[in-house]
Amino acid sequence: MTAGNVSYDQLRDFIAGIYQAAGVPAADAGTVAGLMAQADVIGADGHGVFRLPQYIRRIRAGGMNPRAVPRVVEERPASALIDGDNGLGHLATSMAARTAIGKARTQGVAWCGVRNGNHAGPASLYARMVQEAGMIGLYLAVGSANHLPPWGGLELLLSTNPIAVAVPAGEEPPIVLDMATTVAAYGKVKVKAQRGEAMPEGWMIDHQGNPLTDPKRANEGLLLPIGGYKGYGLALIFGLLAGTLNGAAMGRDVVDFNADDTTVTNTGQAVLAIDIAAFGDPAEFRRSVDALSRDLRGSRRLPGVDRIWLPGEQSRLTRLKREAEGVPIPPALRSQLDALARDLGAAALAA
Amino acid sequence: MTAGNVSYDQLRDFIAGIYQAAGVPAADAGTVAGLMAQADVIGADGHGVFRLPQYIRRIRAGGMNPRAVPRVVEERPASALIDGDNGLGHLATSMAARTAIGKARTQGVAWCGVRNGNHAGPASLYARMVQEAGMIGLYLAVGSANHLPPWGGLELLLSTNPIAVAVPAGEEPPIVLDMATTVAAYGKVKVKAQRGEAMPEGWMIDHQGNPLTDPKRANEGLLLPIGGYKGYGLALIFGLLAGTLNGAAMGRDVVDFNADDTTVTNTGQAVLAIDIAAFGDPAEFRRSVDALSRDLRGSRRLPGVDRIWLPGEQSRLTRLKREAEGVPIPPALRSQLDALARDLGAAALAA
Repeated sequence: MTAGNVSYDQLRDFIAGIYQAAGVPAADAGTVAGLMAQADVIGADGHGVFRLPQYIRRIRAGGMNPRAVPRVVEERPASALIDGDNGLGHLATSMAARTAIGKARTQGVAWCGVRNGNHAGPASLYARMVQEAGMIGLYLAVGSANHLPPWGGLELLLSTNPIAVAVPAGEEPPIVLDMATTVAAYGKVKVKAQRGEAMPEGWMIDHQGNPLTDPKRANEGLLLPIGGYKGYGLALIFGLLAGTLNGAAMGRDVVDFNADDTTVTNTGQAVLAIDIAAFGDPAEFRRSVDALSRDLRGSRRLPGVDRIWLPGEQSRLTRLKREAEGVPIPPALRSQLDALARDLGAAALAA
Repeated sequence: MTAGNVSYDQLRDFIAGIYQAAGVPAADAGTVAGLMAQADVIGADGHGVFRLPQYIRRIRAGGMNPRAVPRVVEERPASALIDGDNGLGHLATSMAARTAIGKARTQGVAWCGVRNGNHAGPASLYARMVQEAGMIGLYLAVGSANHLPPWGGLELLLSTNPIAVAVPAGEEPPIVLDMATTVAAYGKVKVKAQRGEAMPEGWMIDHQGNPLTDPKRANEGLLLPIGGYKGYGLALIFGLLAGTLNGAAMGRDVVDFNADDTTVTNTGQAVLAIDIAAFGDPAEFRRSVDALSRDLRGSRRLPGVDRIWLPGEQSRLTRLKREAEGVPIPPALRSQLDALARDLGAAALAA
């Protein structure tokens, strides 16, 4: 392991210790810590341990329930609605994924929604959970802050509502798409600001509709959806499916969880599981996915393009690297995490 | 009705007569004719009666089975795979929508796939069929010709694989998204060429990666996906779900049905139905969709923007206008349809 980096186990145990010190039962602390550490291992740096201080702040401010018990409140043979009891988002959302997998095994497909949840980390986590069970997984979420206006509008009534889909392959890596419905996720704007770099045109516009490229002025700007009105349509539809359908927040009701630690967010998510065996021979399906992956990767390229990537390949390389070398923790984050551990009387993250 | 226009009934009866003359059984001819006429009424001009000469050419060339009997070949309580028997695409796809609706009523959700189908018209038709049954409908299809390379690539290995989602509302119109995963659908490029207009930058690039704006050079160009690699990912995922999962054509196997009338296309589609009642009170859901629609439509606008549209509102206005005034049939298309009727000894389209 590279010096200064931490392993998945170290990260998971640290996060679990922090949660237990904040009043989260051990089993739940372990579940959430495992998922958050996994987010860091796959390179979703803005969605793993980076979020821990914020989650703890929210628990301590009374905005999130550390002893939540998510439960199924509506159920049919191929569907369920889970109330997250305002607990850590990972609990209800992983329960939705497990429930969908179990139901799809007999029903062919299953869809499970979440309401009264919270931010649950990177979208791909839950799609991959289904894919690791040998099925096709799809995940939708209402983002935890509105940064997107309707097409032609000025008011931030929509979030960057993401979609993730994970498709099993045979010898090739699974195909894992994880994307926001905006050209750039808001986290990328923050990174540009930190680095003092300009944003490319097409990421944001100002209130006159002109391109905005200075990331320090991001709070005066509007994110642009992919494909103009098309991305607006996708953000709206994903929000209806992950939010409105479940009785979760959508539109004006979405709480900016970066700015507000106390208001219940009522975050919504949805997981779809499709059992490949309900549509034919899974081995044949996997061979077809392999052949398609190879066709795409091996096809002729535009001048100057080194490689054609399949969705999920780059984060897979990050995962393999970090499984071998550990996860780098930037110094500013490490100081925050050390302070958090001291504050809660929990064990510090291994040096 | 405006002079020269034709009504839905006239269009439907004309199309049904042509199909019967080409050997399609009366009931099937009626089903497909109704859906094709509906495509024209909602303004999907490139996907309605415009396609009739091509479909008939394919039947006569032996590439499509006029007496197809689609049937369920795989089934679970919440899923089905339908083999379209290489018939008119509308038959198997509308059967998939009906099957999904029936199953979702008891199971909560249901997903039905199609293989061995054909081009089935505009995506929104099948999502709206589910929405008209009071459910949320989602439709995916593998496009019937490849116009899109993988991101960074030159080879046309993907189609503009569309998605449609239709969501019921209460007093407001349903929200109906229907979009290709490319910035512009290929039909829009053809329209620009017909009109002698340049394409905007961002629709296509040439084989050097430079913007291509002359629509007459479209055959040297590559369509661009929405959001760059994101739209590429969506086109790939939708193709995996609508094609590969069903054992239908995807990638290199996709037959260009514009250039080839004889090779079996093995087109794939998928329909998802979600019963709103499985997730709570449908009346409350409809009120929430109404409130969201009004919030978005009534929100502040960018300078110069007259109106914020919800997905599906513009095609709804077209439908209302055409229900009142009839469907305009351009002279060149009318000549083609007249020739087709003479050729088959069928009744001509009403003048």
